[in-house]
Amino acid sequence: MDPDEFRRAGHAVIDWIADYWATLEQRPVTRADPPGTVAAALPAAPPGHGEPVDAVLADLDRIVVPGLTHWQHPGFFGYFPANTSGPSLLGDLISSGLGVQGMLWATSPACTELETVMMDWLAQLTDLPGKFRSSGSGGGVIQDSASSATLVATLAALHRASGGRWRDAGIDRRYRAYTSVHGHSSIEKAVRIAGLGSDGVRPVEADRETHALRQAALRAAIEADLAAGDVPAIVVATIGTTSTTAIDPLPEIGAICAEYGIWLHVDAAYAGAAAVCPELRWAQAGLEYADSYCFDPHKWLLTGFDCDAFWVADRAELVEALTVLPEFLRNAASESGAVIDYRDWQVPLGRRFRALKLWFVLRWYGAEGLRAHIRSGVALAARFADQVRADERFELAAAHPFSLVCFRLRADDDTNAELLARVNRTGRVHLTHTRVGDRYTLRLAIGSPQTAERHVDEAWTLLTAAADDLLAR
Amino acid sequence: MDPDEFRRAGHAVIDWIADYWATLEQRPVTRADPPGTVAAALPAAPPGHGEPVDAVLADLDRIVVPGLTHWQHPGFFGYFPANTSGPSLLGDLISSGLGVQGMLWATSPACTELETVMMDWLAQLTDLPGKFRSSGSGGGVIQDSASSATLVATLAALHRASGGRWRDAGIDRRYRAYTSVHGHSSIEKAVRIAGLGSDGVRPVEADRETHALRQAALRAAIEADLAAGDVPAIVVATIGTTSTTAIDPLPEIGAICAEYGIWLHVDAAYAGAAAVCPELRWAQAGLEYADSYCFDPHKWLLTGFDCDAFWVADRAELVEALTVLPEFLRNAASESGAVIDYRDWQVPLGRRFRALKLWFVLRWYGAEGLRAHIRSGVALAARFADQVRADERFELAAAHPFSLVCFRLRADDDTNAELLARVNRTGRVHLTHTRVGDRYTLRLAIGSPQTAERHVDEAWTLLTAAADDLLAR
Repeated sequence: MDPDEFRRAGHAVIDWIADYWATLEQRPVTRADPPGTVAAALPAAPPGHGEPVDAVLADLDRIVVPGLTHWQHPGFFGYFPANTSGPSLLGDLISSGLGVQGMLWATSPACTELETVMMDWLAQLTDLPGKFRSSGSGGGVIQDSASSATLVATLAALHRASGGRWRDAGIDRRYRAYTSVHGHSSIEKAVRIAGLGSDGVRPVEADRETHALRQAALRAAIEADLAAGDVPAIVVATIGTTSTTAIDPLPEIGAICAEYGIWLHVDAAYAGAAAVCPELRWAQAGLEYADSYCFDPHKWLLTGFDCDAFWVADRAELVEALTVLPEFLRNAASESGAVIDYRDWQVPLGRRFRALKLWFVLRWYGAEGLRAHIRSGVALAARFADQVRADERFELAAAHPFSLVCFRLRADDDTNAELLARVNRTGRVHLTHTRVGDRYTLRLAIGSPQTAERHVDEAWTLLTAAADDLLAR
Repeated sequence: MDPDEFRRAGHAVIDWIADYWATLEQRPVTRADPPGTVAAALPAAPPGHGEPVDAVLADLDRIVVPGLTHWQHPGFFGYFPANTSGPSLLGDLISSGLGVQGMLWATSPACTELETVMMDWLAQLTDLPGKFRSSGSGGGVIQDSASSATLVATLAALHRASGGRWRDAGIDRRYRAYTSVHGHSSIEKAVRIAGLGSDGVRPVEADRETHALRQAALRAAIEADLAAGDVPAIVVATIGTTSTTAIDPLPEIGAICAEYGIWLHVDAAYAGAAAVCPELRWAQAGLEYADSYCFDPHKWLLTGFDCDAFWVADRAELVEALTVLPEFLRNAASESGAVIDYRDWQVPLGRRFRALKLWFVLRWYGAEGLRAHIRSGVALAARFADQVRADERFELAAAHPFSLVCFRLRADDDTNAELLARVNRTGRVHLTHTRVGDRYTLRLAIGSPQTAERHVDEAWTLLTAAADDLLAR
């Protein structure tokens, strides 16, 4: 495809996306086609000869788009948001066009240096402790996801807990990881991948009201493992759990980790973005204890997936754990020690130029624009929660410090599950569920830049209408 | 950014990329600015208020682009290619615009189903054994890189080798992994991440001429470990090693793996793309023995990074090893067993809609277009190798079955290192190096769709001119 043909087709695709965004609200958020619908509409074999872009775009509209759940829809309230924005797309598009590899500083210096500066910018914007900045002992890197951040933190923690033996000898003792019973499933997965087995995760009891990890239970779990001869390696604390956005008590957890010499990783995948607003930074009190920290600009900070921002307090420790140096990657810059080679900060070798989308987002919105986005989400969640509170048939299932509201009908689990299914079947909104206190609970998570009061109000109207009908039976 | 503003800025960015591609040839492939040049040109803090797209694009030209190594440049011959193409960009751009999450089938069904079909298409195009197709026991998935594919294969292999205990109990014995001394560094990294330690990798001797793994040495290593009470878990064989594109003897390795019940993963990261051409499929003879296989369309098949194509012969085994199911991800479709949830095929939870770029590439080029691209690279490499052969001052350091040529001056290592440095300093070409038979060796890897005879000839002209000068001293 020559540059002129790319130019024509590229404009058409940009227009396609602009039209898609402009018409999202008229589309059903999701459909309920049976499994296999999309696959059955596709040819069983690739074409022998090339086809024009128009033919692919026609099939995109005909086959693919009807089979999507539209995560950027203003009525999408499921899971956590995975929002994107125009500036993010532009930055990512340039990254695709440049097609450079950032595995080493030497493989494309600007790719590494822009990333280091963007991570420092983000650290300033969210007021992280100074040790996480590149001017100190630490630094930041973009991971694909918080899952990978937890894995990388676990590996560095194992290296430390083993006294440096892990790198060569592997898992030769029973190392243990601790997290709240509300910690994300990716923590168990990371620990399993790292070779500790799912048994290596010690789920620590949480408070029944706040859903926050109980520090006394953490201490007891650590003491029990030490008594059994096991090695506590890492605690993963959460700011904003996935079920309910509960906040673990970092100052107390941090003091325990410091006392026992255990790596503290703080996972703020969704809620960390809130710290761009000074009034929401209370949630990260105690972060100065952390050895590593992450949040996902790809969740609630207008940057398209994948963009997890991960920081370590001691970059040397991380690099020592992960580096492997074959001849074909040797170069003078790396050997000078004057540069960062981000391949040693992550699982894969190759890496895209993801800092570009962050650069476009941070510059186009500016700090105030990002704060406005977060504040809008928090305010809309509060508005929705007020509506829940005002209807005695409903109850809130947890606090809503950010933009997630957990609620339920004062009814049994089946009724709540049916409530969820009914509102989702309208195609106007999409919510998901969790269990809180072992009871089926609906989650309404706000984050799309297109979501406005009318969308949240429509969700409430649909919910109350479905409740009227369900409770009348 | 509203749709109309995005439309205007998007057209500008598309034009920027078209212009970048059209002018690549006039740019230096790389520059030698000292570390910190780009970072020093960027503000130390993010802006408080938003800035227009034009301002960011101006800084892109002024600060970022001069600090890049241009991997899409027709004179880029370093490492392995990481080529992209117009159709790939268009598909990836749509993926960014849709912004959907493919972690579960239920989170966006078309994202999963298109990926399954594209992996089946690729399996057909490269004539993979039937067991790797979704209609059989196996199936394919897009990973970010071959590094992650090796890691995932290692985890499934450990689960099998442990008799299913690994998932919960972790590494409770000494498991061993085997690969040629020329296996990629990502194999050691994967094995380390999986908790076996770098000592868990048994580097197996290779033939001095062909650089292929010696089957007798593999058998001896396995026997020695078994005698020591260790557990052989996985063999990673390579089609097209990174140093020299050597090809391990799969039929013999496969028979050994079958005899001992060891997982065989085949890493064809770069060379696997060649199998779109029937005349190059000899290199994958014996693939029917493999439990898992991968190659990178993002290296030599015109698809932008990241797009590693990974297949397993038994998808149930992989999912069993990796799945963790929290309440907030439960859904009826997953529980029906009728759908694929790709989160269970990879390390992270989240995933982009990467199948779109593959769909655009496979349809725009068609099978014949892809074959023409591969054949062009192979022919250009043969042309360059002929030039090396015809100059008695030079020698080829290895066979060149694909599009990589390894060569050196008949001179000492320092002279060869200086030769590389000189040609790279011209900014017209960029080559990298390796060691073959413990001697410093230059690598010229071809893969950019823009690379034509004149670029390869220019590389040769620059090399011979530098050699004239170096040898005259």
